[in-house]
Amino acid sequence: MVGPEIERLMQLLSRLPGLGPRSARRVALHLVEKRETLLLPLAKALSAVGDSVKTCSVCGNFDSVDPCSICADPRRDQTILCVVEGVGSLWAMERASVFSGRYHVLGGLLSALDGIGPDDLGLGRLRARLDGSIREVVVATPATVEGQTTAHYIADFLADCGITVSGLAHGVPVGGELDYLDDGTIGAALRARRSF
Amino acid sequence: MVGPEIERLMQLLSRLPGLGPRSARRVALHLVEKRETLLLPLAKALSAVGDSVKTCSVCGNFDSVDPCSICADPRRDQTILCVVEGVGSLWAMERASVFSGRYHVLGGLLSALDGIGPDDLGLGRLRARLDGSIREVVVATPATVEGQTTAHYIADFLADCGITVSGLAHGVPVGGELDYLDDGTIGAALRARRSF
Ligand SMILES: [Zn+2]
Ligand SMILES: [Zn+2]
Repeated sequence: MVGPEIERLMQLLSRLPGLGPRSARRVALHLVEKRETLLLPLAKALSAVGDSVKTCSVCGNFDSVDPCSICADPRRDQTILCVVEGVGSLWAMERASVFSGRYHVLGGLLSALDGIGPDDLGLGRLRARLDGSIREVVVATPATVEGQTTAHYIADFLADCGITVSGLAHGVPVGGELDYLDDGTIGAALRARRSF
Repeated sequence: MVGPEIERLMQLLSRLPGLGPRSARRVALHLVEKRETLLLPLAKALSAVGDSVKTCSVCGNFDSVDPCSICADPRRDQTILCVVEGVGSLWAMERASVFSGRYHVLGGLLSALDGIGPDDLGLGRLRARLDGSIREVVVATPATVEGQTTAHYIADFLADCGITVSGLAHGVPVGGELDYLDDGTIGAALRARRSF
């Protein structure tokens, strides 16, 4: 009833994270209404990303240059690598502005359920990067079962490399109310308690 | 830090209804990750909509043909017009499959606050459509102050045309719990009560 072009647009929009059929419909309508100021610029921006953005062959980050601007930046600490699940985690680390080293993007986590094993995460590629200049690998996978299983696997996998393998500390998020935290987090925060 | 192309994409995505900066970031990442299966098809779908979809010169609907497929459909009732605020309302009416006539899209509602007066709604164009074959105009503007002000204005404006001007009934939405309804709706539903 809306014609095949709008129908197709709605169908693709409904596959975006956080958008269901209802919000896809609302977004499609908004785009048609804002043809010049939003729809056409968005089409152009998507094509530009599609044409220019590639996966960094060193770390797995997304950028329009390869190696990515982080890998190519001589001011970044060349002695420390942060291993992350995906580029979303890399972006989160960069936003926090607390890490000055470089990254290694796994592209997933070990998952028996989804059939993702060590070979799928390209750990050989990670090991190949440990050429002597790198002193520490921080595994910043999520604090979930799969994230921690992956972190422990990587720690074992790199055990004979003679470098420090560390993980992010668990605890109460800054600004986090205890009321809304699960027991596991509270337990981890208590066990890792520090004296003032 | 994500490069100018992804930055631009995030900025445009954050202007879509229901998406803030956080969800725009998440959507942008998903799109880059699904370049072949989602990003490029979406760019193509947007261009297709931009190239083909136009505003129906008769009713104001969006379609790839003008007059739109509803206006051009000889099986639709030619004696009744439904006046709606926008194409979103037209889509909602069509989904409900309860109206077999044709539409008239106002493109807005009267609003002193937003400076939208009668001339902005193209009511002359509506009046010009009332050529003798149309017996009734159903004003299906929203049940808000602006929607109802607009409906009453249109009823007055068409008072001398000798046709029936009606409005949608107010009442309890089907499946609606009384607990979550405002007093105005409950009052309207009580006043319009029907015997079983
Ligand atoms: Zn890189
Ligand atoms: Zn039409």
